[in-house]
Amino acid sequence: MTILDSALQCARNNQEAHLEELQRFLAIPSISTLTAHKPDVEHAARWLADQLKSMDIDNVEVMPTGGHPIVYGEWLRAEGKPVVLVYGHYDVQPADPLDEWETPPFEPTVRGDELYARGVADMKGQIFALLKAVGALHQQGPLPVNLKFLIEGEEEVGSPHLGEFIDAHREKLDCDAVLNCDAGILTPEQPSITYALRGLAYFELEVRGPSKDLHSGLFGGVVHNPAQALCELLAGMHDDQGRVTLPGFYDKVRDLGDEERAVLAQDPTTDQDWLQNTGAPALWGEAGYTATERVGARPTLDVNGLISGFTGEGSKTVLPAKALAKISMRLVADQNSADVHQQLLAYLRKNAPKTITWEVRELVHGDGAIMNRNAPAIRVAAEALEAVFGAAPVFKREGGSIPVVALLQQKLGVDTVMLGFSLPTSGIHGPNEKLHLPCFFRGIETYIRFLTGIAHHKP
Amino acid sequence: MTILDSALQCARNNQEAHLEELQRFLAIPSISTLTAHKPDVEHAARWLADQLKSMDIDNVEVMPTGGHPIVYGEWLRAEGKPVVLVYGHYDVQPADPLDEWETPPFEPTVRGDELYARGVADMKGQIFALLKAVGALHQQGPLPVNLKFLIEGEEEVGSPHLGEFIDAHREKLDCDAVLNCDAGILTPEQPSITYALRGLAYFELEVRGPSKDLHSGLFGGVVHNPAQALCELLAGMHDDQGRVTLPGFYDKVRDLGDEERAVLAQDPTTDQDWLQNTGAPALWGEAGYTATERVGARPTLDVNGLISGFTGEGSKTVLPAKALAKISMRLVADQNSADVHQQLLAYLRKNAPKTITWEVRELVHGDGAIMNRNAPAIRVAAEALEAVFGAAPVFKREGGSIPVVALLQQKLGVDTVMLGFSLPTSGIHGPNEKLHLPCFFRGIETYIRFLTGIAHHKP
Repeated sequence: MTILDSALQCARNNQEAHLEELQRFLAIPSISTLTAHKPDVEHAARWLADQLKSMDIDNVEVMPTGGHPIVYGEWLRAEGKPVVLVYGHYDVQPADPLDEWETPPFEPTVRGDELYARGVADMKGQIFALLKAVGALHQQGPLPVNLKFLIEGEEEVGSPHLGEFIDAHREKLDCDAVLNCDAGILTPEQPSITYALRGLAYFELEVRGPSKDLHSGLFGGVVHNPAQALCELLAGMHDDQGRVTLPGFYDKVRDLGDEERAVLAQDPTTDQDWLQNTGAPALWGEAGYTATERVGARPTLDVNGLISGFTGEGSKTVLPAKALAKISMRLVADQNSADVHQQLLAYLRKNAPKTITWEVRELVHGDGAIMNRNAPAIRVAAEALEAVFGAAPVFKREGGSIPVVALLQQKLGVDTVMLGFSLPTSGIHGPNEKLHLPCFFRGIETYIRFLTGIAHHKP
Repeated sequence: MTILDSALQCARNNQEAHLEELQRFLAIPSISTLTAHKPDVEHAARWLADQLKSMDIDNVEVMPTGGHPIVYGEWLRAEGKPVVLVYGHYDVQPADPLDEWETPPFEPTVRGDELYARGVADMKGQIFALLKAVGALHQQGPLPVNLKFLIEGEEEVGSPHLGEFIDAHREKLDCDAVLNCDAGILTPEQPSITYALRGLAYFELEVRGPSKDLHSGLFGGVVHNPAQALCELLAGMHDDQGRVTLPGFYDKVRDLGDEERAVLAQDPTTDQDWLQNTGAPALWGEAGYTATERVGARPTLDVNGLISGFTGEGSKTVLPAKALAKISMRLVADQNSADVHQQLLAYLRKNAPKTITWEVRELVHGDGAIMNRNAPAIRVAAEALEAVFGAAPVFKREGGSIPVVALLQQKLGVDTVMLGFSLPTSGIHGPNEKLHLPCFFRGIETYIRFLTGIAHHKP
């Protein structure tokens, strides 16, 4: 038996134990955006460090940052072999709306072929699968490839300290390729590889009118209702073609050429699939592009949250003093988030009436990235997927944002291969997030094949 | 000494005791819209009934309704004298936003000339002042005028059971005039009498898009964001002249004639006063009308609440499944709330896109009212105000809604005199609601003068 075959066999023999251990990892509510969960985030970091140590990874450290810590570790004993930097994150999104979960978000539960828990698909399930792949290889002898681990705890808040961490540890992180496990495939039958990601610029917009909440009868009709004014400003941010109206928003957007449109057209996801995966009554978006193009290759603007006035049970006749929106833009190459911040301010300066005051607070920003589809690591990943899933992967651009990909490209000059196993139906960031267990187990095998495959390439 | 003079003297001698007793009444959190406070609402009703009994009022009852109870009592031993029905309410608005109160809303606190507490100006302070006026007269001998008390616990939720209560007890409530204490004056120096009130139609509008919350990166640009769609619908409800765009909204609105505009122009409240009382950066509203006209004599539409998606600390990249607004219209003679409900539905049928679904729930409705400024009870009230405050009252139309005024006009055929002592600066329905104590004490004296004055009129 080759090392590959025996490692695959080993992974298959341990599926039940892996599922149990993953549930313990998922039970840690490592929500990075809520300060009350800081101890849980640290707990998750230590849990990962212990995993690495148990596989004889060297120099394992839980390294402090200005925010949540980074878990580092390395295996550099495969002489003459490439160095792969494994990237992942152990933090998760908040779990609300809590009352829409069928089982509690931090009590992982199997129903049918699915494992339900906050963070199971984004991305504790996948970083755990990668660790189990390394573990299966480790049981066969020395690892066949050099590895570095960079597992952060602030991805869900936009990786605010990752850039300075990479700057401070440039040599330590030096590598030939990055394996980023924070990714997905199209369906359990149709694997895919993401070669581009959107950037993110996330803001809070607060509109203020009267100095305090007023009685809507005694003052209604005298002052500009801040909730109404906020709605007017937000409504004006799209035109009737679904285009974003911030001045200059599309100026730097890289056009989709015919060749790339043809590649993206191989994605078998139809409008009917998009409709089914969202459950919306109809699709919507920028005119002139397919749904798949819009979500991967076009910038967008979404309202992520709205709050103003009285929102409890029953009625309260209040004219609110203020109204707040969380809004975010998804950016594509070659936009950058600092420009978009200025475009938002310019829009508000031009359109906000003098009857209210407003303030913008930037919460998160990160640039998008696009990779060479023919790089060796991407080809090895494609072969691994085809061997495990029995189908060649399609190439796609993803709508989500993973700031580290752009950071590593800009700071280390290294391209990333995105290889992960969530599905469009996994419900990440929403209630009842789930991971398809057959994909999870195939994921471990794919990682084993990737790590043995990349070892055959020259550094 | 006349009865009047000795009653006034008695009220003056007891100011300290009255203030203490009022604070006990205010400490009961009788929030009618929150089911958790049902026992508190009942407590407040029993407290009032005990007050009436202590003044030898006859047939005092806490009468059940389909919702919160009504406190009834009567004094019908002043033979040949008019019967005055005293209306008030003992329920209060919710106290949120709690963190904006300088002292807790149900721990009444005196600072300078002001008493701070939820409900102190709307309207526990005023119904209490009326009771103390009756108490001062009661201490001089039999009351000089016939009284009936109708004190409800559902005014702040739109008096949903008051209509059927009046229908069921038409004879019991028969009277010559209604004294409604749920009113205010312009300033401590300038008393006023309100002769018209606006109606109210209050709705919840829910917009739904995807069947669950989605990741705004993976799905942004594919479906119509429900928070954005809600903003678009709300933004479209006003045109650029500040007019409400619901189809037919102004069709039945009674025009303001030149004579009435002249009466309203006697109100000394300037735009500068409106600006100062609201703290807004500028005034706003329907073109062609003064601020005082807009708030009293023109219908308006306000957003009372907005909620969607993630509204906690930090960022969450969610594309929300739904968005909710609380909106309400203030109505003037001769609009009615059922028409306005249909106009809202017609607007949504015409303007809501097929990319979302929507639902409207009616929460509260009540018609407006307008009274004859020259009725005897209104003239007696004007004389009482002038005697106590040293200035003749101005006549005004009020923007708030007191459904009982229209109900009693429609069902009993009796006009109401509005006589109360809150101020535009009292902050009713908002945080740090307060009552100006000199106005409170003058209020007791004004009620004493009104009750002795009305006794001289023929029934």
